[in-house]
Amino acid sequence: MKRRTIEGREGAEDLAESKSTNITWHEGHITRVEREALLGQTGVCVWLTGLSGSGKSTIAVAAEHALVEGGRLSYVLDGDNVRHGLNSNLGFSPDDRTENIRRIGEVAKLFTDSGVIVFTSFISPYRADRDKARAIMGDGDFVEVLVDASLETCESRDVKGLYQKARAGEIPEFTGISAPYEPPENPELVLDTNTQSVEASMEQLVGYLEKGGYLGAKA
Amino acid sequence: MKRRTIEGREGAEDLAESKSTNITWHEGHITRVEREALLGQTGVCVWLTGLSGSGKSTIAVAAEHALVEGGRLSYVLDGDNVRHGLNSNLGFSPDDRTENIRRIGEVAKLFTDSGVIVFTSFISPYRADRDKARAIMGDGDFVEVLVDASLETCESRDVKGLYQKARAGEIPEFTGISAPYEPPENPELVLDTNTQSVEASMEQLVGYLEKGGYLGAKA
Repeated sequence: MKRRTIEGREGAEDLAESKSTNITWHEGHITRVEREALLGQTGVCVWLTGLSGSGKSTIAVAAEHALVEGGRLSYVLDGDNVRHGLNSNLGFSPDDRTENIRRIGEVAKLFTDSGVIVFTSFISPYRADRDKARAIMGDGDFVEVLVDASLETCESRDVKGLYQKARAGEIPEFTGISAPYEPPENPELVLDTNTQSVEASMEQLVGYLEKGGYLGAKA
Repeated sequence: MKRRTIEGREGAEDLAESKSTNITWHEGHITRVEREALLGQTGVCVWLTGLSGSGKSTIAVAAEHALVEGGRLSYVLDGDNVRHGLNSNLGFSPDDRTENIRRIGEVAKLFTDSGVIVFTSFISPYRADRDKARAIMGDGDFVEVLVDASLETCESRDVKGLYQKARAGEIPEFTGISAPYEPPENPELVLDTNTQSVEASMEQLVGYLEKGGYLGAKA
């Protein structure tokens, strides 16, 4: 085993002789491909976008369940685990929404690099913000999914009573009511939950990932 | 299968009847324990702290390599993938260093929750910042590792020439020279790279994780 250095990739000085051990020493980072081979899957960011109540989270959680049951490591980033943690110091102004999505994109990129199939479930209303998230990930690593339900559909569901509050002016800058939603122009996938059940949408999504080769490691 | 709702955990309205399919529908998030069972390991944040040149990154990358070769999914968060991405809008002022570490702690928490063994390799000089990262993760989820090399040792290595530049005043707020380093008072592990090779340090670290049960799923 050759002699090696602290902070060795740039280094010039040896700290100590290597010892013979049962743990193999290697230079450099494990590659993403090596992690994907270990997992038997391909890391990808599945970016769900759509109005509040369109079904993003329900579909994401169901897809995560189906994938994990099938032996694929997946993880959902959503308001529950991001807004109260990483982005707890951000509000809902346009600038803060942009920074919110920027950070989520960067974290999703890290998960994708780790080999995980990561679902992001956020309204993410601005096209430019989503396009930036796409741009920081490689081709094929970013699957934009429009969870398509009309405002009328979402408002008629109004599961959390948010639309009623927004109409009453109790929630400022509410997407679809008092703040804009810009749908994607060329999403990889559209899940129409106006007419299709969330089960069918989840199956459509998992089918897309299967066909795209994400449920196996790259050859 | 019972009828179910969009945004169903809070919901009251049905969108559509369930369909009979070969993908099983489930309510609610996959739990961390289910992901850990899939991976055969326990998610944990291994937080390496120490001066520039102490050996943090070299040890983290080597440990990642050893773990992945042993079939354990691990991932390194370091300056390369965080400072140029998620934290590219932060500098090196005390406030920005604190926000830097806060975000890294939150991301490490997400990785830990996903079941991954995540190494963070940052100087992380302030005790209070590290303690906050510890506080947001549960007991046992945060393993603080002091990569212990004296300033003299690190400065004599000076692999990247940073100490020389810092002494010349070309790098402001350089930890150990013109900015403080506060070592942990009760770290889970100390790796003394003054006297011990990085190989031995990596083995000590992997041995700690093995003894701690992190390399298997919780029963």
